[in-house]
Amino acid sequence: MYNFTIELKPSAKKPLYEQIYEHIAEEIRGGRLEENERVPSKKALAAHLGVSVNTVGTAYEILAQEGYLEAVPRSGFYARRADAPPPRGGAAEEDEEEPPREKSAADFKTSGADVGSFPYATWIKLVKEVMYGGPELLGAGDVRGDRELRAAIAKYLREFRGVSCSPSQIIVGAGMEHLLMLVCSLSSPDRTFAIENPGYKKIDLIIKNSGRRVCYVPLDAKGISPAGLEKSDADTVYITPSHQFPTGVIMPMDRRAELLRWAAAREGRYIIEDDISGEFNFLRRPMTAVQGISGSENVIYMNTFSRVLAPSIRIAYMVLPKKLLGLFNAKFSDYSSTVPRFEQRALARFISEDYLSRHLSRLRNAYRKRRDLLAAAFKESPYPVEISGGRAGLHLLIKSPDAEEILKKAAEGGVKLYRLDDYYFTPPEKPTNTLVAGYAGTGEEDIARLRAALTENSAHTDKIPEFRGCRGQGPLFRHV
Amino acid sequence: MYNFTIELKPSAKKPLYEQIYEHIAEEIRGGRLEENERVPSKKALAAHLGVSVNTVGTAYEILAQEGYLEAVPRSGFYARRADAPPPRGGAAEEDEEEPPREKSAADFKTSGADVGSFPYATWIKLVKEVMYGGPELLGAGDVRGDRELRAAIAKYLREFRGVSCSPSQIIVGAGMEHLLMLVCSLSSPDRTFAIENPGYKKIDLIIKNSGRRVCYVPLDAKGISPAGLEKSDADTVYITPSHQFPTGVIMPMDRRAELLRWAAAREGRYIIEDDISGEFNFLRRPMTAVQGISGSENVIYMNTFSRVLAPSIRIAYMVLPKKLLGLFNAKFSDYSSTVPRFEQRALARFISEDYLSRHLSRLRNAYRKRRDLLAAAFKESPYPVEISGGRAGLHLLIKSPDAEEILKKAAEGGVKLYRLDDYYFTPPEKPTNTLVAGYAGTGEEDIARLRAALTENSAHTDKIPEFRGCRGQGPLFRHV
Repeated sequence: MYNFTIELKPSAKKPLYEQIYEHIAEEIRGGRLEENERVPSKKALAAHLGVSVNTVGTAYEILAQEGYLEAVPRSGFYARRADAPPPRGGAAEEDEEEPPREKSAADFKTSGADVGSFPYATWIKLVKEVMYGGPELLGAGDVRGDRELRAAIAKYLREFRGVSCSPSQIIVGAGMEHLLMLVCSLSSPDRTFAIENPGYKKIDLIIKNSGRRVCYVPLDAKGISPAGLEKSDADTVYITPSHQFPTGVIMPMDRRAELLRWAAAREGRYIIEDDISGEFNFLRRPMTAVQGISGSENVIYMNTFSRVLAPSIRIAYMVLPKKLLGLFNAKFSDYSSTVPRFEQRALARFISEDYLSRHLSRLRNAYRKRRDLLAAAFKESPYPVEISGGRAGLHLLIKSPDAEEILKKAAEGGVKLYRLDDYYFTPPEKPTNTLVAGYAGTGEEDIARLRAALTENSAHTDKIPEFRGCRGQGPLFRHV
Repeated sequence: MYNFTIELKPSAKKPLYEQIYEHIAEEIRGGRLEENERVPSKKALAAHLGVSVNTVGTAYEILAQEGYLEAVPRSGFYARRADAPPPRGGAAEEDEEEPPREKSAADFKTSGADVGSFPYATWIKLVKEVMYGGPELLGAGDVRGDRELRAAIAKYLREFRGVSCSPSQIIVGAGMEHLLMLVCSLSSPDRTFAIENPGYKKIDLIIKNSGRRVCYVPLDAKGISPAGLEKSDADTVYITPSHQFPTGVIMPMDRRAELLRWAAAREGRYIIEDDISGEFNFLRRPMTAVQGISGSENVIYMNTFSRVLAPSIRIAYMVLPKKLLGLFNAKFSDYSSTVPRFEQRALARFISEDYLSRHLSRLRNAYRKRRDLLAAAFKESPYPVEISGGRAGLHLLIKSPDAEEILKKAAEGGVKLYRLDDYYFTPPEKPTNTLVAGYAGTGEEDIARLRAALTENSAHTDKIPEFRGCRGQGPLFRHV
């Protein structure tokens, strides 16, 4: 084996990492360090040479990027043939402090998405046509997004979500995070945002990261409580009325009207309506967005295409009340849009040429089937369960006195489910005994795995499954 | 002519705009409102019907989107044939409150870019290959950006800018604005950012929009003054050392070292190095970035590809000090990246397959020629001028006792130049008599137009051009 004792010259002008790099590269080129031979770990070589781990790390990284070494995850660095072409785009190892995350075989997280059903060939076709359409889209565009896309979104929102807006009110941005950051910047620093409890941890994080105060308002059977809101000192409230995240409550019209009255009662109050589940409503007649109710001059409507199309397509949008447009222009008209114009134009065509509505209708059918399959897996398990949240959105709530046992059994079978309690910002008064299972990112095989995990070797296998006791069957299937 | 008196029923369930929309659509379908007939302006019809302009505006917008009306800029709405297909992507007019901006025929703004030289065909090829490579890039990616791109950027920075970093320190984002917003979020709310005076108005805006305090520190011949910085209560300083914007000062090594000492002197001090002109250095040996100087653990390096590639390609990046990575993860690991993964991968290949370095080298040559042409246009004008700022960056400074006259003459010829004084956050002690002319977004014909504007009918045409007096010739051409 090759000896790694390198004569370093600390006083030389050349940095130590470059000396190490050159030495090892030369040994590989000279054939003294053979192909597929493992080199010492960074720590070991650093200790050996009396230099820092970072110094060796830098040398290895350059060697890896130039194709002399190859990083094999969880194993180390191996010499490659010196004449091999360098790996495309750099195959340098991830820094050692970042271990790969453990993954469950089947993860029923709520943030999943069904990438497989996305009409990818159509998307490629549109992007290509837009690109071949000419290079004028390389120039800077409107900070709000290209007019074509904003017009298509406005029409779509009017037709499918009952949102009343003109294209000039629409702001397109690279994700909800970015848009919510803009909204926070529009508000004064002493503003307090109320968010639903339980709710989205990420929204809490974004608002706090943007330096605004957050307070948590509890829910009742109709959604966020106006009494709780009134008691708080909040002047802005973030809500998910189309399918409360994560409890699945669909906010009824009277509560929507109550919230609009709350907003109108004092100057400067706003409702942020996150309509993320608005497209996935399995009712016969989806409810109009809060923004579309008359007198909704205090509503900021937000949504994203990432959930509907694909997570890596970073196009979200918001509809600002007309009275905020002047402030938006004053603050942001010198900014650039965060979304590439080619993608904007491809999406504009995807919407206006009806690919979107057809895709959504296919998605809804696929998701409805998957939802039913998932519900059946729980109901056919030996545990007593009560299922809800299935009338919209892309996750189910499973209430059971055996919730912890179900969670454990599933985990043993490589299936990850989530606790509703973990979505609370302050601990719930009493444990909800409820699990959350998102199904957008899962397939039939995942559900089969869940079914197997819950049935096999269960402590309950000797019990008669309590189908009759499932109150959840009602609300879940009645409206479908 | 058709009579626009529409019988509206305010008490009806149908909104007023929908009643107007249906009435007009029906009249067009029935042929009573003929093709190419102009309909009344929104204001006129609103006044006529006693409704708000917004109500008519909404009706017109729907009519336009459905192809019944067509908006002709600066003229109004015209009826179309009812059987005509609706315009793709919506041709609704822009809201009336947004008049098109007046444009000069030739605009020497500093934010211009040479989109024409971008190897567009290559870019399309790479994007296509990446897309055809498979749909796995539709899934969610790393918030910092894809590993492939970060590795390619790290290598590029090491080789071309002397920046010392590992890919894990790199954060890719959809534009400098977004990244600077993240940096502000990383800092505590009571932090004060010092920025160069004169400097970037946009940076001032972004930091203030993010709720952080800003103070302005004057420049001396070497760049931002450490004494001024020490006097301020700033704990973060934003600098443009590779080519101070807009004065064009290239910060010498001793000043860079002084600033690093300032940062190291107290815990929590940071330097934000905006290296936006780092690629456009016309010196024989470009200076290493401040980040690359040893002991630069307090430098946040930022740059963007939008300037180098095309404004609509929204990919910027920053290099965080290792000690900030933990905080970054705590705050942002749940966020999504703002850049589409397809573009990220296309760019990774654009860099690692050497398209970028070749493009940059072509750009530098083209820009050098254009810079010389622009300098010549001023020097051959009848005005006494002193030109500087040409050793790097993409704009020139033109000092002249006749600065105002030059500005006026240029404007009369349809050429827009800028005043250095306007880049000051607090008025300069005395007028600088200096103009700023960016040439990245202009072509030879723009320079010819400038030349003509300055020469024709000039008050100075009877004077002998003072070529000899141009001190600016020295610094501009000596180092090239």
